[in-house]
Amino acid sequence: MFREKIKVLDCTIRDGGLINNHDFDTRFVREVYKALSAAGVDYMEIGYKNAKRLFSPKEFGKWKFCDDDEVRKITDGIDSKMTLSVMVDVDRVDVDDVKPRSESPIGMIRVASYVKDIDKAIHLVNNFADKGYETTVNIMAISRALDNELNEALHQLEEESKAQVIYIVDSFGALYQETTEFLVKKFRSILKSKEVGMHGHNNQQLAFGNTIEAIIHDANYVDGTVYGIGRAAGNCPLELLIGFLKNPKFNIRPILDLISKEFIPLREKMEWGYVIPYAITGILDEHPKTAIALRKSDKKENYREFYESLVGDDLD
Amino acid sequence: MFREKIKVLDCTIRDGGLINNHDFDTRFVREVYKALSAAGVDYMEIGYKNAKRLFSPKEFGKWKFCDDDEVRKITDGIDSKMTLSVMVDVDRVDVDDVKPRSESPIGMIRVASYVKDIDKAIHLVNNFADKGYETTVNIMAISRALDNELNEALHQLEEESKAQVIYIVDSFGALYQETTEFLVKKFRSILKSKEVGMHGHNNQQLAFGNTIEAIIHDANYVDGTVYGIGRAAGNCPLELLIGFLKNPKFNIRPILDLISKEFIPLREKMEWGYVIPYAITGILDEHPKTAIALRKSDKKENYREFYESLVGDDLD
Repeated sequence: MFREKIKVLDCTIRDGGLINNHDFDTRFVREVYKALSAAGVDYMEIGYKNAKRLFSPKEFGKWKFCDDDEVRKITDGIDSKMTLSVMVDVDRVDVDDVKPRSESPIGMIRVASYVKDIDKAIHLVNNFADKGYETTVNIMAISRALDNELNEALHQLEEESKAQVIYIVDSFGALYQETTEFLVKKFRSILKSKEVGMHGHNNQQLAFGNTIEAIIHDANYVDGTVYGIGRAAGNCPLELLIGFLKNPKFNIRPILDLISKEFIPLREKMEWGYVIPYAITGILDEHPKTAIALRKSDKKENYREFYESLVGDDLD
Repeated sequence: MFREKIKVLDCTIRDGGLINNHDFDTRFVREVYKALSAAGVDYMEIGYKNAKRLFSPKEFGKWKFCDDDEVRKITDGIDSKMTLSVMVDVDRVDVDDVKPRSESPIGMIRVASYVKDIDKAIHLVNNFADKGYETTVNIMAISRALDNELNEALHQLEEESKAQVIYIVDSFGALYQETTEFLVKKFRSILKSKEVGMHGHNNQQLAFGNTIEAIIHDANYVDGTVYGIGRAAGNCPLELLIGFLKNPKFNIRPILDLISKEFIPLREKMEWGYVIPYAITGILDEHPKTAIALRKSDKKENYREFYESLVGDDLD
């Protein structure tokens, strides 16, 4: 009954790192790596590969840079079939920092890009593909993409890029099932030689539902995070995804243990999940940054004023 | 663009009452009534109509009984177009407690029933319809209903009952979109003279997604609760539903205020929402009672042992 082509990518450390400046300690990341490996997860995204000339290691934790020797401290001595992934942003990576795959503990590189930067993304992803990595391009803020520009970008990706997977990224948590269906069908119809991926955000509690919707319409790469951790509202909870998928290789038990032992205490210190200002930015198809700022202010529960501040702008 | 036939029913006090023995005070319920009225919600379900010979008013709050004079204390002096609803369970109501609609502040009665009790439910609902109420039958635990028995029950409801609406109730929070679609299409195909309703539970964060799915396939009555309150994982968050629906009569602002002022403090005292043991019972299509008991024990975060206790039963 299960579809063997479906691959699960966990981006707990990468997307969760957006909450704490990528500053998870080695012990914690090893616990995540161990549990995901035991659960049968296909890929684990451990952080970003950012240029140190742009971001200071004094200000950011090590998963902003993912140096190979730090990555090896995570994997050493743990039996695993999982492939490690890093994300790169257009204009924030030095391609020369990325060694050939044969010399690296990383197996996959995902390039995050807005539609407008797709030429730069293709240039990057082809460089990484030529170095031997599995590659994806993740199209961010898809709920704001204009249809003609998205179509052109998808045709370019199909014809010019070596990426194996193109992801729909619902950065604002604004998609409903009907638009998810529309986008997956569009991606599938243009990207004939590639797989389609889905990365949801949970502002409206739809990350899991939209991921199921994407699977129904033939997306085969799906992202989740443990206990839904991630910036603002967070992501599709990995445990729900594993509970839903029928492939017998998956085992939910190590994830349940990991949540009990590590994520319940962590949630006391870091905020993510269903919080009304994040729901509001999702409903309004806005970047969550205003909501994140609100939650750090003394007006954190003043939802109505926040709502009015977003809908009240004059335009002409 | 909006579908005028869609009606929103809020069951905050009724389903939330399952957490606190229906013991919300009059001030709180008036605040809810006021906000829902201002938000343009169509129906508010205020509690159950249970027989006092079966349940003691010493052990349960007033929304287990919904006496007319208590209901009038809620509505007095508040301008509202909203219709009030109560729920009755098969075998727990004295029909003589229910006066004709013309003498009551209640406008709708919903009969909750398992498939096996459908004859009793029809008997009850016809009594209430004859007294002048709007009526529904809510089929509970639908994820466990056998197809042949459900088909027979739906045919009986179509042919023998005076209920205007028949609800799909995902009591265990076990439905995914595909099954929701299957059920709504089945209901629509058999219940030619009635509307279809959807009442989700949020164990797998799918209450809102499944409600959208039901709307897509032509369910016109949808339930929500403020901030998703409800027993165990709770329900479809009303604020997300209002954010999604396009009918200009709806206004999210009073709901945002209500959550800020009343529900954020309440959530500190009462537990509902995305809690892993409730997710587990949803994934396994089980009643949440074992998870509710776990959350009151000193093993409340011991998820793996709880999971094993549910999957480990021997059968032959």
